[in-house]
Amino acid sequence: MTGRVSIEYCTQCNWLLRAGWMAQELLSTFGQELGEVALIPGTGGIFRVLVDDELVWDRKERSGFPEITVLKQLVRDRVSPDRDLGHVDRVRPS
Amino acid sequence: MTGRVSIEYCTQCNWLLRAGWMAQELLSTFGQELGEVALIPGTGGIFRVLVDDELVWDRKERSGFPEITVLKQLVRDRVSPDRDLGHVDRVRPS
Repeated sequence: MTGRVSIEYCTQCNWLLRAGWMAQELLSTFGQELGEVALIPGTGGIFRVLVDDELVWDRKERSGFPEITVLKQLVRDRVSPDRDLGHVDRVRPS
Repeated sequence: MTGRVSIEYCTQCNWLLRAGWMAQELLSTFGQELGEVALIPGTGGIFRVLVDDELVWDRKERSGFPEITVLKQLVRDRVSPDRDLGHVDRVRPS
């Protein structure tokens, strides 16, 4: 499927609200450029974001969560690479 | 996939917040009993909920949106039929 983002989050860590917020940020920014955004409950401190099955963020590798601006750039680069994200692109990724 | 709920909503109608809220309600209630909840942007007044590809709510057939209690019962009946939803099951579906 084109433009599928999936967010795997840890239910034990109570990260549903964080994952749900990020899903809505992505859908608010990209709208129909995304086929879907899926929220996937997991365990064990998991927090991973995939775009079309490509892992773009893993909390355990990155030692934390993405800034929403950085996450939007990671998604943009894969689903709509020519798109200017406005002020988001003026923030230097950490 | 077992336990996939998808919510198709109309971006033109600004139903993202409504769809996102329902997704989080379902994940909050069912947690790991659901494989995933996907939010799918659409157009033309669409608001449909599917459980494992079975259509359980279509705004155009039902002339409106589901009460969240009714939606939880529809999902429960398919993914966890023996589960008592507590006070939700004391509300008579309209």
